[in-house]
Amino acid sequence: MESFESQASSRLNEGSEQSQDSLAYFFARGVCEMRYETLPLKAIEWAKMGILDTVGVTLAGSNEPCATLIAKALSLREQKSKEMERAQASVWGHKVQCSDLDAALINGTAAHALDFDDCNNTMGGHPSAPILPALFALAECRPLGAQDFITAYIAGFEVETKLAMTVNFYHYTKGWHPTATLGVFGAAAACSKLLGLNVEQTATALALAASSAAGLKANFGTMTKPMHVGRSAKEGLMSAKLAQMGYTANAQNIFEHQQGFFEVFNGAPNYNRQKALDHWAKPWDIVEPGIAIKQYPCCGSTHPAIDAAIQIKLDHAFEIHQIKGVRVWIHARRLTHTNRAQPNSELDAKFSLQYVVLRALIEGRVGIHHFEQEHYRDPRVLALLPQVEALAYDDQMFDPSNHFAAKVELTLLDGTVFESHVLQPHGRTSANPLSAFQLREKFELCAQRVLGLDGVRLAYEWIDQFEHQEDVGALGRIFWNHLK
Amino acid sequence: MESFESQASSRLNEGSEQSQDSLAYFFARGVCEMRYETLPLKAIEWAKMGILDTVGVTLAGSNEPCATLIAKALSLREQKSKEMERAQASVWGHKVQCSDLDAALINGTAAHALDFDDCNNTMGGHPSAPILPALFALAECRPLGAQDFITAYIAGFEVETKLAMTVNFYHYTKGWHPTATLGVFGAAAACSKLLGLNVEQTATALALAASSAAGLKANFGTMTKPMHVGRSAKEGLMSAKLAQMGYTANAQNIFEHQQGFFEVFNGAPNYNRQKALDHWAKPWDIVEPGIAIKQYPCCGSTHPAIDAAIQIKLDHAFEIHQIKGVRVWIHARRLTHTNRAQPNSELDAKFSLQYVVLRALIEGRVGIHHFEQEHYRDPRVLALLPQVEALAYDDQMFDPSNHFAAKVELTLLDGTVFESHVLQPHGRTSANPLSAFQLREKFELCAQRVLGLDGVRLAYEWIDQFEHQEDVGALGRIFWNHLK
Repeated sequence: MESFESQASSRLNEGSEQSQDSLAYFFARGVCEMRYETLPLKAIEWAKMGILDTVGVTLAGSNEPCATLIAKALSLREQKSKEMERAQASVWGHKVQCSDLDAALINGTAAHALDFDDCNNTMGGHPSAPILPALFALAECRPLGAQDFITAYIAGFEVETKLAMTVNFYHYTKGWHPTATLGVFGAAAACSKLLGLNVEQTATALALAASSAAGLKANFGTMTKPMHVGRSAKEGLMSAKLAQMGYTANAQNIFEHQQGFFEVFNGAPNYNRQKALDHWAKPWDIVEPGIAIKQYPCCGSTHPAIDAAIQIKLDHAFEIHQIKGVRVWIHARRLTHTNRAQPNSELDAKFSLQYVVLRALIEGRVGIHHFEQEHYRDPRVLALLPQVEALAYDDQMFDPSNHFAAKVELTLLDGTVFESHVLQPHGRTSANPLSAFQLREKFELCAQRVLGLDGVRLAYEWIDQFEHQEDVGALGRIFWNHLK
Repeated sequence: MESFESQASSRLNEGSEQSQDSLAYFFARGVCEMRYETLPLKAIEWAKMGILDTVGVTLAGSNEPCATLIAKALSLREQKSKEMERAQASVWGHKVQCSDLDAALINGTAAHALDFDDCNNTMGGHPSAPILPALFALAECRPLGAQDFITAYIAGFEVETKLAMTVNFYHYTKGWHPTATLGVFGAAAACSKLLGLNVEQTATALALAASSAAGLKANFGTMTKPMHVGRSAKEGLMSAKLAQMGYTANAQNIFEHQQGFFEVFNGAPNYNRQKALDHWAKPWDIVEPGIAIKQYPCCGSTHPAIDAAIQIKLDHAFEIHQIKGVRVWIHARRLTHTNRAQPNSELDAKFSLQYVVLRALIEGRVGIHHFEQEHYRDPRVLALLPQVEALAYDDQMFDPSNHFAAKVELTLLDGTVFESHVLQPHGRTSANPLSAFQLREKFELCAQRVLGLDGVRLAYEWIDQFEHQEDVGALGRIFWNHLK
């Protein structure tokens, strides 16, 4: 009966094995054990900043076609005169109500529409946009308190980032869009927590999420990129709802199976499961490295170079007509998707290192309006774009393990050369945060795009007291009642 | 200015390059040029068989929890007394109306719920389940004729199968679920055709679909597997609707980009783009190798072994208590997901080579009821399961390029050995089809699970005249009005 033995041992790899030692169960136990009362204060403070920032950029993105066209494809309609109904979620920035799932999809897309939402270095992506729209959609449909909401958010954040540790940055470099492919697990974990799922249900939700993980970097620079994020918010929520109802998925070894997440998305030897086990809550990822709040509404990979270019503008007096050429160096991995010498749309311009560095050199800032109304076709910029050289730095210039460095070198027609470099962009980690003033200013500029001034103030004050709110769904009603 | 040159050449790989020579445009042109009038009669005949069979298995699967739980998660409700409304699609087998997208999701899941839907050898999966539920959902919401419908179906079938040629069977073996990861392109192409999209819009729909391609084989044997298919139907439809509205995606090189579909899903050198260019419509894949209609409601990888086991049952007289042991050999790739010595759910039993071969040896057939009401716990079967050895064949036994062969060897307690082998299961290709009688019998057995006898007859006759129907949405009304 020798062959039965070999069969049994091979089954370990083949998915028949029942195991609660799986990573899905590990995460599920970690999520289920979390209690608001035992979270460090720092984690709650950062969660509030993440909520403020994500709400702001979602409102700012709510009229972008990438979000509004989805609402149109879903045949949703404006309900101008109506009061908001309790049993439904809402499309922020519009008088439109819909299911929690559709709200997660649309608001999740809006959250990433301007590429202005927060970042996390572990994830190599945007931690909050896949999670918070799903949680808010749930909270608009049923009474849920802010402390449970915050705990769920931190749970999702921890799952997606500790999973990122196991697969990054191979995962990112290969071409997966981690905000989507890892964010869907964050959304599933967060929604499982907020819905009060048990360990087995939570592990099942993660296994379900694995089969909807999707999103290719080849679609960066198009509307499809933010839609990746909205879809992850929605599919994460769907996974939690289905798991709660008894839907089945392979919680036993969805990550470890030879045809599971690790092997199929990364492939041996490009992942390390142990890292998640070692680093869960040690420390909470939302605290360290924490949340990076974006100062500029364009791809995060361009930010260090923008900081360096603004520094040149601050330090030197020169006119645009004096510029002869610009050279800019960033990390090779980030250059891949930002080397766009001739942006041909507003969205493309957000990923054009050449364009944003020129904007920073010319104006000393980069704002939302620079990616609207064909600003990227500004003749002054068009004339200079061919003179901007985008390069990857080598280990002579910066430590190659630092992928947030940048150098900008500006040469004037008279031969003068100005240069500036940064080792880490402002706001990138919790060790180097934006000020409370900067956070509020960003929120107000974002929210003003769809809310009246009263609404902006009410919303800010409500979020400022977030942890004391007994009904998180009330925030959606503030938006509904104070649209411009 | 040397560096500008190197930058320009590297851009070819990096997605900034505009190209209408991309595979997405190639497929889009092929789809847009198709006309019902110039399709071969054989293709239309096979399309009708695929429609009949898919409609039947979708009705049969419509009460499975994998489908009904999704409807519940979407908060859809029965509308017992209502007439059907024209502007909405319906959940087949239920008095429930909803959006076209939600109908595609639920009916697409139902289509694959019993794993009883048709197969295609090029795809290594199920060609019709991701496509037809999306097309029917569209056709229920707006007046669409059957000839356009058939053309769209064949278009989607051709795209997903010719794409399969470029990535299989590495894609399949690695752990992707091709019915989902390739089927989403089939659904996108079919819906683009039925909606009348132009070449650029169709190519954009395919690029959108690439970012929703998902589904891991590690979830085989759970409800999540059929949901992969429903999601692909829905996402394909969504891709076409969004592309029609002007949504953007990287149609220029979504397949060829270094962070695009080929590299990320398969990786060099495991794909061959040229195969799609060489084989488009030469011949139409629906004609050759064609559609395999499943005779048994379980994983297609087990069918050759079931055929071989039934042959032993037909040829020899033996009683179940005489069985000492069974050995069964199938192709190694198929063994990976069907080697399940101890199925622990009804769904798991559908993927258990050991279970289905025993059923075939004991009863001479394998029917839907064998996967219901805990039949898999039949004590007679449980007692024998440990005696069934599942093995991969080597090139001494069969040509390894034939992955549809199987051998079964039955040993009785008295030492008698019976054996049987098949080189290709019945119904597997268009060269070896089921009879019209067998097709009708399968349809009736399936449809009777939710329709009254009048409804079954009316539906069969309506589909028998499919190519002459002027309003394909009428079929949903037959179901609505004749539910059991």
